[in-house]
Amino acid sequence: MAYNGAKGIQYIKNMGHVDSVFPRQVISSIEAHTILGHVRYSTTGSSSAVNAQPLVAHSFDQTGIALAHNGNLTNTRRLHHKLLQEGQIFHTTSDTEILLTYLFRFRNQGLINAIKKTMEIVEGAYAAVIMDQEQLVAFRDPRGFRPLVIGKLGEAFVFASETAALDTVGATFLREVEPGEIVAVGPDGLKSTFGQSRSGRSLCIFEYVYFARPDSVIGGRSVYIVRKTVGSLLAGRISAKLDMVIPSPDSGVSAAIGLAETLKLPLEWAVHRNPYLGRTFIEPTQAERDLAVRLKFNPIKVLVKDKRVAIVDDSLVRGTTVRVLTALLRSAGAAEVHLCIASPPYKYPCYYGIDIPVASELAALDTNFDRLAVTIGASSLTFAEPEDLYRAVGNDNHAFCTACFSGIYPGDLAE
Amino acid sequence: MAYNGAKGIQYIKNMGHVDSVFPRQVISSIEAHTILGHVRYSTTGSSSAVNAQPLVAHSFDQTGIALAHNGNLTNTRRLHHKLLQEGQIFHTTSDTEILLTYLFRFRNQGLINAIKKTMEIVEGAYAAVIMDQEQLVAFRDPRGFRPLVIGKLGEAFVFASETAALDTVGATFLREVEPGEIVAVGPDGLKSTFGQSRSGRSLCIFEYVYFARPDSVIGGRSVYIVRKTVGSLLAGRISAKLDMVIPSPDSGVSAAIGLAETLKLPLEWAVHRNPYLGRTFIEPTQAERDLAVRLKFNPIKVLVKDKRVAIVDDSLVRGTTVRVLTALLRSAGAAEVHLCIASPPYKYPCYYGIDIPVASELAALDTNFDRLAVTIGASSLTFAEPEDLYRAVGNDNHAFCTACFSGIYPGDLAE
Amino acid sequence: MAYNGAKGIQYIKNMGHVDSVFPRQVISSIEAHTILGHVRYSTTGSSSAVNAQPLVAHSFDQTGIALAHNGNLTNTRRLHHKLLQEGQIFHTTSDTEILLTYLFRFRNQGLINAIKKTMEIVEGAYAAVIMDQEQLVAFRDPRGFRPLVIGKLGEAFVFASETAALDTVGATFLREVEPGEIVAVGPDGLKSTFGQSRSGRSLCIFEYVYFARPDSVIGGRSVYIVRKTVGSLLAGRISAKLDMVIPSPDSGVSAAIGLAETLKLPLEWAVHRNPYLGRTFIEPTQAERDLAVRLKFNPIKVLVKDKRVAIVDDSLVRGTTVRVLTALLRSAGAAEVHLCIASPPYKYPCYYGIDIPVASELAALDTNFDRLAVTIGASSLTFAEPEDLYRAVGNDNHAFCTACFSGIYPGDLAE
Amino acid sequence: MAYNGAKGIQYIKNMGHVDSVFPRQVISSIEAHTILGHVRYSTTGSSSAVNAQPLVAHSFDQTGIALAHNGNLTNTRRLHHKLLQEGQIFHTTSDTEILLTYLFRFRNQGLINAIKKTMEIVEGAYAAVIMDQEQLVAFRDPRGFRPLVIGKLGEAFVFASETAALDTVGATFLREVEPGEIVAVGPDGLKSTFGQSRSGRSLCIFEYVYFARPDSVIGGRSVYIVRKTVGSLLAGRISAKLDMVIPSPDSGVSAAIGLAETLKLPLEWAVHRNPYLGRTFIEPTQAERDLAVRLKFNPIKVLVKDKRVAIVDDSLVRGTTVRVLTALLRSAGAAEVHLCIASPPYKYPCYYGIDIPVASELAALDTNFDRLAVTIGASSLTFAEPEDLYRAVGNDNHAFCTACFSGIYPGDLAE
Repeated sequence: MAYNGAKGIQYIKNMGHVDSVFPRQVISSIEAHTILGHVRYSTTGSSSAVNAQPLVAHSFDQTGIALAHNGNLTNTRRLHHKLLQEGQIFHTTSDTEILLTYLFRFRNQGLINAIKKTMEIVEGAYAAVIMDQEQLVAFRDPRGFRPLVIGKLGEAFVFASETAALDTVGATFLREVEPGEIVAVGPDGLKSTFGQSRSGRSLCIFEYVYFARPDSVIGGRSVYIVRKTVGSLLAGRISAKLDMVIPSPDSGVSAAIGLAETLKLPLEWAVHRNPYLGRTFIEPTQAERDLAVRLKFNPIKVLVKDKRVAIVDDSLVRGTTVRVLTALLRSAGAAEVHLCIASPPYKYPCYYGIDIPVASELAALDTNFDRLAVTIGASSLTFAEPEDLYRAVGNDNHAFCTACFSGIYPGDLAE
Repeated sequence: MAYNGAKGIQYIKNMGHVDSVFPRQVISSIEAHTILGHVRYSTTGSSSAVNAQPLVAHSFDQTGIALAHNGNLTNTRRLHHKLLQEGQIFHTTSDTEILLTYLFRFRNQGLINAIKKTMEIVEGAYAAVIMDQEQLVAFRDPRGFRPLVIGKLGEAFVFASETAALDTVGATFLREVEPGEIVAVGPDGLKSTFGQSRSGRSLCIFEYVYFARPDSVIGGRSVYIVRKTVGSLLAGRISAKLDMVIPSPDSGVSAAIGLAETLKLPLEWAVHRNPYLGRTFIEPTQAERDLAVRLKFNPIKVLVKDKRVAIVDDSLVRGTTVRVLTALLRSAGAAEVHLCIASPPYKYPCYYGIDIPVASELAALDTNFDRLAVTIGASSLTFAEPEDLYRAVGNDNHAFCTACFSGIYPGDLAE
Repeated sequence: MAYNGAKGIQYIKNMGHVDSVFPRQVISSIEAHTILGHVRYSTTGSSSAVNAQPLVAHSFDQTGIALAHNGNLTNTRRLHHKLLQEGQIFHTTSDTEILLTYLFRFRNQGLINAIKKTMEIVEGAYAAVIMDQEQLVAFRDPRGFRPLVIGKLGEAFVFASETAALDTVGATFLREVEPGEIVAVGPDGLKSTFGQSRSGRSLCIFEYVYFARPDSVIGGRSVYIVRKTVGSLLAGRISAKLDMVIPSPDSGVSAAIGLAETLKLPLEWAVHRNPYLGRTFIEPTQAERDLAVRLKFNPIKVLVKDKRVAIVDDSLVRGTTVRVLTALLRSAGAAEVHLCIASPPYKYPCYYGIDIPVASELAALDTNFDRLAVTIGASSLTFAEPEDLYRAVGNDNHAFCTACFSGIYPGDLAE
Repeated sequence: MAYNGAKGIQYIKNMGHVDSVFPRQVISSIEAHTILGHVRYSTTGSSSAVNAQPLVAHSFDQTGIALAHNGNLTNTRRLHHKLLQEGQIFHTTSDTEILLTYLFRFRNQGLINAIKKTMEIVEGAYAAVIMDQEQLVAFRDPRGFRPLVIGKLGEAFVFASETAALDTVGATFLREVEPGEIVAVGPDGLKSTFGQSRSGRSLCIFEYVYFARPDSVIGGRSVYIVRKTVGSLLAGRISAKLDMVIPSPDSGVSAAIGLAETLKLPLEWAVHRNPYLGRTFIEPTQAERDLAVRLKFNPIKVLVKDKRVAIVDDSLVRGTTVRVLTALLRSAGAAEVHLCIASPPYKYPCYYGIDIPVASELAALDTNFDRLAVTIGASSLTFAEPEDLYRAVGNDNHAFCTACFSGIYPGDLAE
């Protein structure tokens, strides 16, 4: 968290849960008119808070800028190389530090001009918020890969990745920051300008499938309803006779409701998830991994015994969880376990900010779905088709980046 | 956790999450043939681990006994007074220390005899496990208020409050410990004896309603199915026209599925619960309390706007959560919010181990349910009738303690 | 820490440093008229705060007593056995719990009578402070093995083991609690009574040698001056030619000053102790133990090279530190290293509260001091004689317990 | 700590004690051939580990350099400004980041050339150690303001600020890194080169007075003996009649021994320091500050009552501690308290790395020492003269920076 108060821009960063990094007494002692926060699930074992956002750059007169960024640049290597040649040093290898470097270099021309100039240099996905001593400015890349919304809370403006965050703090949703738009908060309210001629929208379609919270609204569409709609459309693709539909807790709930409703089948909450257990830790042995998952999920035997069940999840990336759920349901006595995935096969890597495994770990690389079903232990495996997803999001598929499903990447990929 | 190894009975106790009190490296360094564990949600701000179970009593030759106890004695005051007269000192005011004192006094006659003698003295609810240097013994009070099950994991026997705990560690369910039964684990397997003539079963019916995990089986009945059945039976008691059924996440899920299925109404997961937030902390001001709840729950507006919705929960004790959910759904645009409770009104205090507020805080004390609905902010309020619950558990209501709903307490209440 | 305020006797206990167990904000939120604190270096790996003092015993009406105790009872086993026969359970094996049990049993006769009755039963060493709802009372065993002093801070009375503690909080020293005396704090000030006919004073002489802080005054004698005097008297017992006197930091400082002054030799602070390192941890290998000590102590080579040095310490118990200091001084180039111990050989176990190793670990068991010097690596080894110590404390040796040096135990040792 | 192992340069940084930042199990899991560590007492309330050294700069191919630096550059502002103009961003305002930036810019020419080029640009004080994938190199500014020594431990080379650090890890002292010298560790041992024509030595004389540990040797002179010598020379400057000499614990010990020896007066350890208390925290009120100091120091009354005492300290900067010690000794009954400072008055600010208060907080700004003595509460105040210190360090005062005492700054001060 970086904040701008009487002493200029200061920050508090650490690894850990939000409530331990920012204890109530610390939070309540901060006096600031502008605050920038960032939270991220650390995927690597990095042993330092240095990489945590917001990144802050200081000038020698104690002024500075602070930047929070969601997304991934695609010309990182070229820019990194160029800046190194110019003598720039880097404390991280993150692309956010590159974004920060250009913004800082141009900052004397004013933040808005600095953002415009930077947008001409960097490529890829960025939904970002920056502040200096004077101003808070939000901006989004010309294709709008990652979402960014504006809310109002009393007299204050709030920027966030999702509308659910606005609801949480009690802010009213105003509108989205448009692709390529630069929105500055000033004494007279918001001031909008555009950084570059737009080159076509490319909102990440995987936000609807997986990332966003179901209670968020993106591009005017409810994430919950998109997921439920894909679940309904899945109904027409399943040939197996089924006795009930079971959601994968909790990622498959919306789609399972859609599927059960359309198939007129009972929906049963047949796998209990222990809410006190976190993610499945990387345990050293297979026996320990099995135990970790068994500690987390437990099927209700009497419901599934001798039944033909569909288990529904939102997506299939590595396939770890569904593999386990399938095995648990079978050992609980299910006669058949049909796996239904409410999105197309995830087959291509993302360069715009989804932290997804390298290609070789993707379950859907095996395009023979019958064989894949056997590998997973399922009686059958059904994916949604791309058109199901396009239909659910409004039949406007050219407005989305669908690269992870289609392999069609928008724009130039200069890596 | 108390364990019996080469150095006799030792223990590790502290306040905090299981994984911080028992780190992996500590757990894996323990060598013991018998282990007793206990976990409890601390309801009071007690600043010491002294009250944590298992309680351990030592003899001067380093032998001892360790006891874990679920339930509440009803003649605590009389026994406490008697023991104090005899010179006994107490480090806690818990009834478990009374149970421990008698068991320790009689331990030289062997654990089984000590338990039998103690059962003649103490009254009330106790499902307990005790160990000394030699033996592990489980026992249950003659009315069987609180559940206690036996499982097998390889060659080892496992005792637990619920079958879900057996599933979690991969143990197979063998059977329940019977009311009044004493089950000792010995070299030749289990040895069973009975402590007292039974005076009629009185299993706590609130275990089905609220306490137990939905994936547990008690008395041969699935908790999930009992709750879903009550939800189905509620259908006949609701007169309002409804557009959809919404579960209170996650306590109302089973009943909401039953209700929606019977009413042939859409079930919608219309209130999102933030899984990263714990219980609603006691915040100093009403504004902070509101914020705390808004941080935790968020309705999906597009689903409920202008709709007549039923929100389903398992029980109504204080009514805090449903009050908030009702308000959130209304401000999200719901036309009507009908509150459906899948159990009868909770009206009478429990003396057998349910940690429930004093009578004056019980919402259902107001027997005018129309007025209570107004207080809560609901369009209507429907409770299950006691016979719905009796039907769901098998029409065998004399086998249960229903005191909290009926006011009929089993046995003598010597307080 | 136990305190007596509006809610009766409450307590906070934990393992750890004082400032982490009692953070400033916790301390400042306590409202109480009487507070009992206790701090002890935990010598065993006990994994719980249960054993921490003050011990608190509760009655069922929420009243209780709290007890802090310094010393050791000598008839523990007999009393423990007797109480067990009577049905008493114990949560610890400490003798403080026995003291608490009797005080609690008799408490209805008033605290002062309860103490008197308890004093007739227990034997050994106890300097203790007890409080109930009404009163704070200090008492000391009839022989006065362990010290206990009274101070005044404004209108409040303060009891402590040492006068240094009174200085620290700014209290004025009033007087000592006499052997066998019971001192109650009441509305009219202190009220004194005696519990038993005195059987002769036996103040632990090792308090002067090792336990007490040098800035404390016990029995009217400055601990610093007692130690310095023994150092001076050592001068006449050393036959070796010496170039300088070096204190063992910091335990040998007072005696080294006395020795150097009398011998008219330079005193040099030739061994630096790293103040940032705590005690020498029990390291798994000898190489790690050596490293741990080298991290803590460092000799100043230029001072000791080719010199005949005396290294002075207050006592020789296990001999670990002097063994290391001797080796470090030799490897720093000292020609001779003469070890001078400012107390007689510690040869006999203590039953009155000194936590000292079993006999077999005592260095001075080897009564051939020439051979012991070789074992330790010293050029010679000189102990003070008992009469040096008696002279230093005022030639009144029948007023002290000298058992650890003389083997003469005061009173009956009923073990 | 940065280390160079199989995965290139990695680091672990955090705020806190060494043993909590680097737990034993973490340390023992590191496999590296080169390690760079840095520890510093954090003087500011910085809320992040970002500023902690070693600083690490990464290249995009995952190679990098790590730098640990002791001292202060004097042309920081000019260089900072110049680099900002060139587009460089800074995450800190420390001069170490400037040093790192130039070293990184030139690193492709090899570390030794990069250091030489950087030495032509930066001015001021730097004793530093740098490593890249290949090499470990130590270097020291041409005037040698701050010390840097080389040791050998088995086959490994060790660089440290002080010889005491070599002793601690069991390394043998080889020699100092010379002013202006660059020492690279290579497969054939050390390789030395010089970066710049030397402009005269200027070793910080305050290292002898205050910074270094007494068991260190700098420039061939024992720090302990330098301090003791100044104490001896102080003897001729004191006119008061004295009964005893008391060291300020522990900073005045060496000088007090020298003074007492020369004056043939008793040395008494008359102020006890509580080893369990850390530095005097900045407490909100004067009453709390008094309590904090009283908790830390306690005079031995019987020693000082009615006596004329000298209290000796190494230096007088702010004067906080001696002010308190003087008051404590007076209230313990001392007839006169004469304050003796074993260094000249500290009057001028340091630009080479001593973290000393701004001029207005320096006690010795008041050049009327009689008046200053009154302010401090002392009966008299005696400083060493500069020539005492020069004599103690070998009468070679042109080899030292004496700016803080003399106001004569070596070299150009380009700020």
